[in-house]
Amino acid sequence: MDGCGTYLETMRREAPLVQCITNFVAMNIVANVLLAAGASPAMVHDAEESGEFAAIAQALTINMGTPSPRWVEGMEAAARGAAAAGRPWVLDPVAVGATAFRRGLGARLLALKPTVIRGNASEILALAGAETRGKGADSADPVAAAEAAAQRLAETSGAVVAVTGPVDFVTDGRRGLRCANGHPLMPRVTALGCSLTGIVGAFAATRPAFEATAAALAFFGLAGEEAARTATGPGSFQVAFLDALHTLTPEALDRGARLEAA
Amino acid sequence: MDGCGTYLETMRREAPLVQCITNFVAMNIVANVLLAAGASPAMVHDAEESGEFAAIAQALTINMGTPSPRWVEGMEAAARGAAAAGRPWVLDPVAVGATAFRRGLGARLLALKPTVIRGNASEILALAGAETRGKGADSADPVAAAEAAAQRLAETSGAVVAVTGPVDFVTDGRRGLRCANGHPLMPRVTALGCSLTGIVGAFAATRPAFEATAAALAFFGLAGEEAARTATGPGSFQVAFLDALHTLTPEALDRGARLEAA
Amino acid sequence: MDGCGTYLETMRREAPLVQCITNFVAMNIVANVLLAAGASPAMVHDAEESGEFAAIAQALTINMGTPSPRWVEGMEAAARGAAAAGRPWVLDPVAVGATAFRRGLGARLLALKPTVIRGNASEILALAGAETRGKGADSADPVAAAEAAAQRLAETSGAVVAVTGPVDFVTDGRRGLRCANGHPLMPRVTALGCSLTGIVGAFAATRPAFEATAAALAFFGLAGEEAARTATGPGSFQVAFLDALHTLTPEALDRGARLEAA
Repeated sequence: MDGCGTYLETMRREAPLVQCITNFVAMNIVANVLLAAGASPAMVHDAEESGEFAAIAQALTINMGTPSPRWVEGMEAAARGAAAAGRPWVLDPVAVGATAFRRGLGARLLALKPTVIRGNASEILALAGAETRGKGADSADPVAAAEAAAQRLAETSGAVVAVTGPVDFVTDGRRGLRCANGHPLMPRVTALGCSLTGIVGAFAATRPAFEATAAALAFFGLAGEEAARTATGPGSFQVAFLDALHTLTPEALDRGARLEAA
Repeated sequence: MDGCGTYLETMRREAPLVQCITNFVAMNIVANVLLAAGASPAMVHDAEESGEFAAIAQALTINMGTPSPRWVEGMEAAARGAAAAGRPWVLDPVAVGATAFRRGLGARLLALKPTVIRGNASEILALAGAETRGKGADSADPVAAAEAAAQRLAETSGAVVAVTGPVDFVTDGRRGLRCANGHPLMPRVTALGCSLTGIVGAFAATRPAFEATAAALAFFGLAGEEAARTATGPGSFQVAFLDALHTLTPEALDRGARLEAA
Repeated sequence: MDGCGTYLETMRREAPLVQCITNFVAMNIVANVLLAAGASPAMVHDAEESGEFAAIAQALTINMGTPSPRWVEGMEAAARGAAAAGRPWVLDPVAVGATAFRRGLGARLLALKPTVIRGNASEILALAGAETRGKGADSADPVAAAEAAAQRLAETSGAVVAVTGPVDFVTDGRRGLRCANGHPLMPRVTALGCSLTGIVGAFAATRPAFEATAAALAFFGLAGEEAARTATGPGSFQVAFLDALHTLTPEALDRGARLEAA
């Protein structure tokens, strides 16, 4: 793939309109992350308009962090709208193994053919039908334990699958990459995984999904490393992280990206 | 009008209870902006109680950023409650031109006679029935292109109309003012427009709507200028902005307000 | 009771999964506060899954800040699920006296036997059926005016009751404690009361409710004092507060806790 910097450059130049259906915890930070990075977020979720809007937006992300029956209707309408309009869409299966409602929802959304799936190890294991120790939104399994499941899920679903954690793994079923960017403070800030899903959507709006996802992971993780230089805890980290997403240059991303073939 | 400082002084002394029906992205920052400025926000939206609460609050704001049928019922009940109790209310028509659902909702809320309407240029153009290039929540039209539409909208609706952007324009149909306060980082933080709507509500709770709106714009923009002195990106900007809303004095507002007749 | 530090130590070691049903304003900051402190938050509210999840989580908190009929179903299912699984649950009766809907909801949740009730003075007075001057989410009554009502409420409900304000009061009906930790900037940041409810849930997940609640109040207030050392307003306070929750040690809590028998 090209250097990650060109993906960032393309995204910032096109400033894609990204429709985000995300959870109540994440809405504000997802929008701020996308704005800081240079995209244009739009939180449009209700079934009254989510399908119509999916044809206007350049990419769609669906995060099932705080689902309810009404929101499920909006998610499905949006996913169908994106498919009909030929737009990429990203699935974030938050805590998909936790309850019967989530397991059912995960299966329904998977059937709507996401372009990319991004989750932590426990979520990817659960979505792939494997055993997991996860209970809530935090992962209880290491990334490495989910790599085989991710590969299988990519093959059966046709999606690019990203398992994120200390070292991320991304695969399209044939190729695999690992991304070592990131910082241990990141999981101490809520909804950063959800925010990464938004960034994957912004990158995938303008470039092919596998490479765009890998570049998005490197960009997001490197901004985290940058933020950690000055942070003294999760509060100051979050502030510095938004600043870093805004100021990180394509050149710095090319220098700092730590991607390698898996 | 009086110096802007007296409007800020009155607002802080009375600490008005402002009922905010706003979107999921904005709820936290709107409440924090109102608290930092010296008002008392109350997020009460459901139709079970929104109309009853509108008679308790001193002003109401309705932002249609993440609408759904159930929320529309709550918005309409609240607007009717505010009208019945003689309370001012502010309409924020987020992305009103984007979908059929939003166009219909904008028309229904407009019919309920808002005291003030605050939006970006694309939103005011769409609400006034003019052509716009806007698609999502971010404006794609310059403020100047919406001034005539704002004037017409003020005349036909009876509301004070504020078009916000690099230089804001506010009119009651007869008079016009421009406000040059603000900073380019402000649109890189999500929901600052929604937060400004809250501040307009707080100012309009205690003083006449046209002047209160103009003073609110100057106060908000000047706090942004103050925040930009130390900010290194949208994260640190947001933090410094809340501090500035809290510490800005009426005297500093009188000195820094950049209002002029249009 | 033991030194407060041991309660913090236990909480961090066990990192309890805390199910939070909270309001739209508070969701992000409650999750961030719990993560910063060392717990694992899970926002699971809909009736489709809230009862099932209550058996997975180690504690439950229910905050009625932005209620609607659908959410009420989810709250009741969760409270029943927690009771059936023998998990502690904390009630946060936001603005319970403000509208008929809230008064009814407060009574229904009270009947489901919360383990702990945490509110400001106006809320505890209203929930206990006494007169209050409160209108919105901010208290209009001093803590001292609610101590007798808190005692009565503890006796009749069987819950530990905490009235929070400049000096907090906590009682199980027999014993009483006052906690003097905290800082005047705290009520200028939205949803810190809601966040405290989350922390009470995390502490009560692992230790007996009366002592756990008192230790949680001291921890939360002391982190506020720590944050105020560097804050220049409510924006920088919030950032420093999250950092302080993360870095405060059990030893520092033992030294700084200001609890005394009431």
